Amino acid sequence: MQVSIIDQLKEAFRVLPGVGPKTAQRMALHLLERDREGGARLGQKILEAMERVGQCRECRNFAELETCEICSNLQRDHSQLCVTESPADVLAIEQSASYRGCYFVLMGNLSPIDGIGPEELGIDQLKQRCGEEVNEVILALSASVEGEATAHYISETLRPLSIKVTRIARGIPIGGELEYVDGNTLALALSGRKPL
Amino acid sequence: MQVSIIDQLKEAFRVLPGVGPKTAQRMALHLLERDREGGARLGQKILEAMERVGQCRECRNFAELETCEICSNLQRDHSQLCVTESPADVLAIEQSASYRGCYFVLMGNLSPIDGIGPEELGIDQLKQRCGEEVNEVILALSASVEGEATAHYISETLRPLSIKVTRIARGIPIGGELEYVDGNTLALALSGRKPL
Repeated sequence: MQVSIIDQLKEAFRVLPGVGPKTAQRMALHLLERDREGGARLGQKILEAMERVGQCRECRNFAELETCEICSNLQRDHSQLCVTESPADVLAIEQSASYRGCYFVLMGNLSPIDGIGPEELGIDQLKQRCGEEVNEVILALSASVEGEATAHYISETLRPLSIKVTRIARGIPIGGELEYVDGNTLALALSGRKPL
Repeated sequence: MQVSIIDQLKEAFRVLPGVGPKTAQRMALHLLERDREGGARLGQKILEAMERVGQCRECRNFAELETCEICSNLQRDHSQLCVTESPADVLAIEQSASYRGCYFVLMGNLSPIDGIGPEELGIDQLKQRCGEEVNEVILALSASVEGEATAHYISETLRPLSIKVTRIARGIPIGGELEYVDGNTLALALSGRKPL
């Protein structure tokens, strides 16, 4: 039996994160019932993005051109390089408006079990870039086991270049109540205490 | 400043129900990072559906052809007509596998304040169809004020045709505990009691 277009559309929606069969159906019917124009625009934009978004050859972040807007912006401080796991992390840091340097996006963490080694993360490219005009590499990786391992590997790899390698601070978040902060974070916050 | 394709894609995702800026960003980056093929298929399917899905001329449900699969299926009982508010309701009833008749989809409820009158709901078309081979009209509308008003209007409109007009039962749902059922439902369930 031939599958109807609506069923095909519902199935296609399942590629989105967190979208199960019920939500997929709701999305498909919503577009058909209420917003065909918005739907057509969405379809068009998805195709356009899948086709045209590549990676910046400098920092590996998503970019439409060969070099992304940040790397090609001479107003940014090219002597600082912030290493992140994903483009989402770059967006989060940019939104905080607290950093004027450049980025390097690993697109993952070291994970030998998934076949993700230094090559997949572009560590050679990072090393090469550090040889140029970079003074400081700021590791802004997750405070998870994988993030720690990746941070350790990178700092070891960059040691021969004698560049300053730093890591973003870990501690209690703003608005966090001590009572609800987990023990590991508390331990890190205590050991990382600073004089007032 | 020109808006990047990724920002345009994030914006486009906002047409989906329940998708705010954070979820839209997550969806856009997920497709770009992990599933460009699935993303391209999704874009294609959305465009296809927006373009090719129309309404059945018999029952107003979504259909690719002039007449939908249910209306053109001679195995179905064409003497029973179940009136629903939306295509989603038809899907829900079909999934329950408890009905072999045909449907008529209003695509909404009477709502004068939103400019939705009998014409928008195709009540004339429903009346005309009832003049043919229909013996019973089953109203499967929401148990809301709008649903009640619509049900009332339809039953008044069909009265001159002297067709049997019924409404699906209202009461406590299977697995529902009395303690947590709201008062209106309980009142309806009590007044609608049946001999065992």
